[in-house]
Amino acid sequence: MSTSEVVELEGHIIDSGLMERAFTVVMDMGGEFEVEEFRVGKHSDEASYCRLRVFAADEAGLHPILHELHQSGATLAAPTDATLQPAPADRVVPDGFYSTTNHPTDVRVDGEWVPVGNIEMDCAVVVEDEGEPTRARTKVLNAIEAGDHVVTGDAGIRVKPPERPRGSSGPFGFMRGGVSAERPSESTIRRVAESIAETKAEGGDVLVVAGPAVIHSGAGPALAELVREGYVDAVSAGNGFAVHDMERSMYGTSLGMDVETMEHPRKGHKHHIYTISQVARAGGIEAAVEEGLVDEGVMYECVTNDREFVLAGSIRDDGPLPDTITDAVEAQNAIREQAHDADLVLMLSSLLHSVAVGNCLPSTTRVVCVDINPATVTQLLDRGSAQAVGMVTDVGMFVPTLAEELVR
Amino acid sequence: MSTSEVVELEGHIIDSGLMERAFTVVMDMGGEFEVEEFRVGKHSDEASYCRLRVFAADEAGLHPILHELHQSGATLAAPTDATLQPAPADRVVPDGFYSTTNHPTDVRVDGEWVPVGNIEMDCAVVVEDEGEPTRARTKVLNAIEAGDHVVTGDAGIRVKPPERPRGSSGPFGFMRGGVSAERPSESTIRRVAESIAETKAEGGDVLVVAGPAVIHSGAGPALAELVREGYVDAVSAGNGFAVHDMERSMYGTSLGMDVETMEHPRKGHKHHIYTISQVARAGGIEAAVEEGLVDEGVMYECVTNDREFVLAGSIRDDGPLPDTITDAVEAQNAIREQAHDADLVLMLSSLLHSVAVGNCLPSTTRVVCVDINPATVTQLLDRGSAQAVGMVTDVGMFVPTLAEELVR
Amino acid sequence: MSTSEVVELEGHIIDSGLMERAFTVVMDMGGEFEVEEFRVGKHSDEASYCRLRVFAADEAGLHPILHELHQSGATLAAPTDATLQPAPADRVVPDGFYSTTNHPTDVRVDGEWVPVGNIEMDCAVVVEDEGEPTRARTKVLNAIEAGDHVVTGDAGIRVKPPERPRGSSGPFGFMRGGVSAERPSESTIRRVAESIAETKAEGGDVLVVAGPAVIHSGAGPALAELVREGYVDAVSAGNGFAVHDMERSMYGTSLGMDVETMEHPRKGHKHHIYTISQVARAGGIEAAVEEGLVDEGVMYECVTNDREFVLAGSIRDDGPLPDTITDAVEAQNAIREQAHDADLVLMLSSLLHSVAVGNCLPSTTRVVCVDINPATVTQLLDRGSAQAVGMVTDVGMFVPTLAEELVR
Amino acid sequence: MSTSEVVELEGHIIDSGLMERAFTVVMDMGGEFEVEEFRVGKHSDEASYCRLRVFAADEAGLHPILHELHQSGATLAAPTDATLQPAPADRVVPDGFYSTTNHPTDVRVDGEWVPVGNIEMDCAVVVEDEGEPTRARTKVLNAIEAGDHVVTGDAGIRVKPPERPRGSSGPFGFMRGGVSAERPSESTIRRVAESIAETKAEGGDVLVVAGPAVIHSGAGPALAELVREGYVDAVSAGNGFAVHDMERSMYGTSLGMDVETMEHPRKGHKHHIYTISQVARAGGIEAAVEEGLVDEGVMYECVTNDREFVLAGSIRDDGPLPDTITDAVEAQNAIREQAHDADLVLMLSSLLHSVAVGNCLPSTTRVVCVDINPATVTQLLDRGSAQAVGMVTDVGMFVPTLAEELVR
Repeated sequence: MSTSEVVELEGHIIDSGLMERAFTVVMDMGGEFEVEEFRVGKHSDEASYCRLRVFAADEAGLHPILHELHQSGATLAAPTDATLQPAPADRVVPDGFYSTTNHPTDVRVDGEWVPVGNIEMDCAVVVEDEGEPTRARTKVLNAIEAGDHVVTGDAGIRVKPPERPRGSSGPFGFMRGGVSAERPSESTIRRVAESIAETKAEGGDVLVVAGPAVIHSGAGPALAELVREGYVDAVSAGNGFAVHDMERSMYGTSLGMDVETMEHPRKGHKHHIYTISQVARAGGIEAAVEEGLVDEGVMYECVTNDREFVLAGSIRDDGPLPDTITDAVEAQNAIREQAHDADLVLMLSSLLHSVAVGNCLPSTTRVVCVDINPATVTQLLDRGSAQAVGMVTDVGMFVPTLAEELVR
Repeated sequence: MSTSEVVELEGHIIDSGLMERAFTVVMDMGGEFEVEEFRVGKHSDEASYCRLRVFAADEAGLHPILHELHQSGATLAAPTDATLQPAPADRVVPDGFYSTTNHPTDVRVDGEWVPVGNIEMDCAVVVEDEGEPTRARTKVLNAIEAGDHVVTGDAGIRVKPPERPRGSSGPFGFMRGGVSAERPSESTIRRVAESIAETKAEGGDVLVVAGPAVIHSGAGPALAELVREGYVDAVSAGNGFAVHDMERSMYGTSLGMDVETMEHPRKGHKHHIYTISQVARAGGIEAAVEEGLVDEGVMYECVTNDREFVLAGSIRDDGPLPDTITDAVEAQNAIREQAHDADLVLMLSSLLHSVAVGNCLPSTTRVVCVDINPATVTQLLDRGSAQAVGMVTDVGMFVPTLAEELVR
Repeated sequence: MSTSEVVELEGHIIDSGLMERAFTVVMDMGGEFEVEEFRVGKHSDEASYCRLRVFAADEAGLHPILHELHQSGATLAAPTDATLQPAPADRVVPDGFYSTTNHPTDVRVDGEWVPVGNIEMDCAVVVEDEGEPTRARTKVLNAIEAGDHVVTGDAGIRVKPPERPRGSSGPFGFMRGGVSAERPSESTIRRVAESIAETKAEGGDVLVVAGPAVIHSGAGPALAELVREGYVDAVSAGNGFAVHDMERSMYGTSLGMDVETMEHPRKGHKHHIYTISQVARAGGIEAAVEEGLVDEGVMYECVTNDREFVLAGSIRDDGPLPDTITDAVEAQNAIREQAHDADLVLMLSSLLHSVAVGNCLPSTTRVVCVDINPATVTQLLDRGSAQAVGMVTDVGMFVPTLAEELVR
Repeated sequence: MSTSEVVELEGHIIDSGLMERAFTVVMDMGGEFEVEEFRVGKHSDEASYCRLRVFAADEAGLHPILHELHQSGATLAAPTDATLQPAPADRVVPDGFYSTTNHPTDVRVDGEWVPVGNIEMDCAVVVEDEGEPTRARTKVLNAIEAGDHVVTGDAGIRVKPPERPRGSSGPFGFMRGGVSAERPSESTIRRVAESIAETKAEGGDVLVVAGPAVIHSGAGPALAELVREGYVDAVSAGNGFAVHDMERSMYGTSLGMDVETMEHPRKGHKHHIYTISQVARAGGIEAAVEEGLVDEGVMYECVTNDREFVLAGSIRDDGPLPDTITDAVEAQNAIREQAHDADLVLMLSSLLHSVAVGNCLPSTTRVVCVDINPATVTQLLDRGSAQAVGMVTDVGMFVPTLAEELVR
């Protein structure tokens, strides 16, 4: 163990799991550590502090350990400025670029700590040092332009993972990541309703990510009500969701089945194609609402109540609708904006769109994820919101019950 | 193809899928067929008739084909009496014994067709020809006694698979076996409620098979209400279900978690063990209700409203309760009686107990199966009820909604 | 029942389930039928024939019944020419347009039956009657151009659902749609290997649809071998699959974890982003192979052995790679060509891409679907290939075993 | 916060997560804490020490917090003897009885720490103080006899949760509880094989818990080989597993399907019933092997190589076999002995039996859990082995690959 470096951890580093993570990272990755100083917070509201010397056999072994510690919230003891390298070409990062976590992050430029704007994971950090003040923000790979000043290495970067809230954690478990199927369903929905009401009361934004199952399962009218009553500020969905929703309004069916009587459960998708064709003829969803073609449902409420919606295209779409953004990069950018504006995200039975939204969220945004498939809920919660509720249940019953709780 | 035999099919053999099955069985199993006569029912209420000669290379090839056709509802053209062989020992069947389907079945004894009592699948048929009139009934292997007159071969046996109901099939799909996740949840529950109400109006019996998730998910009070209000005639469950239900009454917790506030979600099972210990001290569930130890919940309502319950033990049980039948064979016999009495069975989040009940049901009993895991629903419906509804949903929301529909 | 129409069914209509379907469609949809003539095929290689008069209360009731019967393979007794209507605008179908099944289909133009080219489901049929000979082909909604001669109604259209193969059906169950988890895994793979070998021996094309799990689970080298040895003619995948595959070649990791030693299972996606960045710098996958950046793996073998690959973008992609088609409509068109060329499609752990490919397949293409999630396998098989094998297993073991069987 | 108590934690309390757990337990349960002393282990091989004063509003609030801390490994600072109360009746515990964890535990009797024998969770601790030396052991509720000296309260009890092994943790993740589906399948199996070989080399015992899917999926011969070659010391299974295994030997089928050719996949369970009947006639499995009725397979190898097997009955069994223990309590006792003897447990596609075995295991036993259903793997690992590997894969491919690795 011939080389070493000193890192520091500070804050609620015991109950947020950072100390545990620091020790196990070093051991898992073949290093050694020496605790040079440790001051424990005596009470729950006092911070702790740890100065840790990390050893490895050589630089090649030390570097990835430091990187991991760093991403977990440790900082190098002697702060220096961040290293900047110009991007060699469009969509190409310089060697050793710093890849972001989804935690709040600062970079040190000219001796000053500058917060990184629009933090999200797996991005580069670009510093705009022309003009005042110096600004730093994330850029996804395909937005990188030749010459961008990209942060490389781990020096001069400070990551602040969320700390466990003081006191009992309520329904939003801290970094839980797991999913309890053994919780009373109706009580949990009540807690989610309270969180939404609280978010709205504080002037926050609620983003709903919805899959087609919301409509098939009969929850469309309840979601439409939540939009109308102001509990939903934006909707992120796919082409299929919007078509099913409008098919319901135009033909009273979803996938060809009468939603009320469940008659004619034939496979014919004719109404589905007609819906797209008619909306295309009208010139888009807004036009279709205006000419009275669509007169109820989630899309109708979004248009009439001026809620923003993003419909992202995918290769399994029929049509698609004129409103659907078929280019994946363009769609990601639209989703990114929605994600950055959201204070609470409600993910309803939509793996693809929920992953896309989740990729753009900082770890501080509240997330509620509802799906009948436990693997989907686990996968979405694992992406790292610090405050998340996962619920394995039927959206066809979840949304109406939620609407009843909120609208009453 | 040097050997052949003639079989007959009669009834609604086209739309119930029997003709299709007959042709594919012969081809799948390497035989050939010749249709000697075919009369099609001209209208939906007229029976069809088919006389089919089946060929195979030799007797060894022909026999399994005939057996399969027979189990599907074909009968040998020239009826003879069933062959009877004495069981060589207790729990041992004679060579070539006839293994039952779950369809209504007759055996021919002394030229008369005798219905087989208590039909269920994978049993032997035992004929009691002493006394008048001759009787036949199923016996499971472990009930076979030395000397029992057991039916062997396929001759002299008539299987009557259920026919597709005339007209549209409603929510109870005929022999569907599949599970539609794309149906509106609340409408489906409404249909189930109507079926239960109808069954009760006709004087039928409703059996509920319930797993512990019913209690964990908060649906206990709703199920208790259904018992109290007379919509549930019998409950089939395990030791765990009863303990969780009574723990809720005695301590207000389920698995140590407060059911309303969801506080203290610790792993401690202490209340669980206490519940068993206290009920054991009282002398059993009925005694615990009588001494006021248990004063609400499903078990409470069963005791006070005189609904029969069977608690079948399993190797994962704590305790168990004094009321739990720990011997599997004894428990199966108790379940068998419940199953034979039931006209509609509601299976709620319980794979083990639902399979055990399903094993004892004739194909004519209505079955509603609710589970959050689609594989469980598929497995249960595949066991062959002709009228079955499968629903992939959350019992924590299903049961309260059902109770609201029924009790209002 | 004041209105009626006569339809005909012909072929192996009993064992392919068409007769059953015809009867149940009429009853489910509230109609009545009268069998005017029925001739049964006496042996397994003789066709049957049924002339059926269908009654309904009125035209509005009769029409959907006839449509369903028609889509199932019935034809109107008195053939007339197909009705053609001009498309009113780009991407807009005329009222009453005919929405295709995935079965082989003919349309009648000027008294002649013309086969519909490139059949796939949920499309319109466009007739090009200028020039000789008259041609008909499917068009998806977004390809419709104003003035296209689009077939409307059901008249003059003949759908030919696949018939059950004569004899026993082997591993490729006919229209089975279900998934047996109770089959011996290694024997099933042996059958799949035989089918692939057979397809290649007959000069057919094998298309592999692959998800990222193929690489994570360690099956990359085996799939690369199948490409190199000529058992795979084309690959359909997403951006993630290609990046993981090349990350493995460039860094020996997948998602940052060493594939052999499983060390450093950290969440860092840095290698992932680097891979995209480097390939972008090189100018694309082919260039990256040529400059030696990528020197093994599935993409490498595709490039060096000249196998076509399509990488379709999605909103959850990092990057993406320059080769990834980010526009969903453009990507669908590329997938459509792959699908039409394929004689056997092997779907490996990829729901999104498998659905997209499956949407473009006629019902006559052989499909093998492998996924660890039974719901995925069921969903994919339900899309209607007549010859399909579903296997619920681990691709990490499936692909190496398959390669061993084929390459030996 | 008017009442308080002092507890101590000692050992690798940071990286084993105990410090984090202690802080969060106090906060989650509404208490407060003051760290009176904290000494951190400077290097990875030095223990840490924490003395913590815990406050609550009253005794009723303090008690459950202390209980939770205690179960997590904290000890009351001033040790006293454990409190003993006589059990009031058979199968009844005294008020306030101490319910065990699955961690190694000591109780203090007459000033001496006595280890608790046969530790498993949710049991009572009974002290046998007559005779020398004093002994303590767990008793499940139904084994409690009137007058047993049962430990109550938390005082005088010391729980020692396993500590994270020093150095990198290898394939056996420490208290991971999660399941990575993103690991290379074949490498993981190689690690499992190494663990089994290591366990055998150290003279340890390997227990296999196997479900019927092992046989259906074609893995029977590979498991039989592992038994024969001495890699499996004991088998814990159900009636169904044994019947399917012997049906394969006697008839070459499993559930009526030929295991090699997969022909005749009919539903007939006749061979299944015959197998039970014939083995019953012979007088049991050992007799059936001796008379040559069964001449290969897992049960055959167990009998001829003198490996102990336990067949536990359940309410879904056919038969059952004479060897099957039908009483759940008796079966649990047999399973308990197997579990206590095992050093490594391999759970193969058997939820019910794996839960039953897992319930009896101390947290120090190595566990490998293999199932195609991720929810099953998660549920089994959550029961709390400190060293566990979960693998979501197909047993039909896992067991043969494992056998190849071990036997070569």
